[in-house]
Amino acid sequence: MDQMARAIANLVMFLEFSPQDILDEDAAMQALEQLAGDLNALDESSQHALSASFRSIASNYEGEDRTFVEQLPEALGLHGTVGEDQPE
Amino acid sequence: MDQMARAIANLVMFLEFSPQDILDEDAAMQALEQLAGDLNALDESSQHALSASFRSIASNYEGEDRTFVEQLPEALGLHGTVGEDQPE
Repeated sequence: MDQMARAIANLVMFLEFSPQDILDEDAAMQALEQLAGDLNALDESSQHALSASFRSIASNYEGEDRTFVEQLPEALGLHGTVGEDQPE
Repeated sequence: MDQMARAIANLVMFLEFSPQDILDEDAAMQALEQLAGDLNALDESSQHALSASFRSIASNYEGEDRTFVEQLPEALGLHGTVGEDQPE
């Protein structure tokens, strides 16, 4: 799941951090909401696994990106975001 | 894998079909290339499964979108795109 999480994290960062002259802010918000909805339709165990993968791959990112990826489970409203399946 | 494929397909359609005044074409192309690279780093069996899922969920889309989703395995350069694992 880690590599799938990486693909999604990179897309989310593109949507989130592209400036307004590159990507319209309202359109980006809609795309992020669509994504969150699609991921929330994953079965519960897949959401847990994806959340764990976001936390796991975050160490491959630097600085603010790392924090952003770590917090993706909460930002996307995934199951497994209250700490019960965090690695430590 | 179908629901994950749906999430990715919807993001790809956003990147591919948003007009230039909403999303800069060069930036969209870069995001798509990043995504293709990330998905090509999945292990081979996951790429096959994702390809099969794109073909499977395509029936949930209408018209040109359906053809687009069916052809996503080839467009993204995934393993399993030469027909050997197509459902029929």
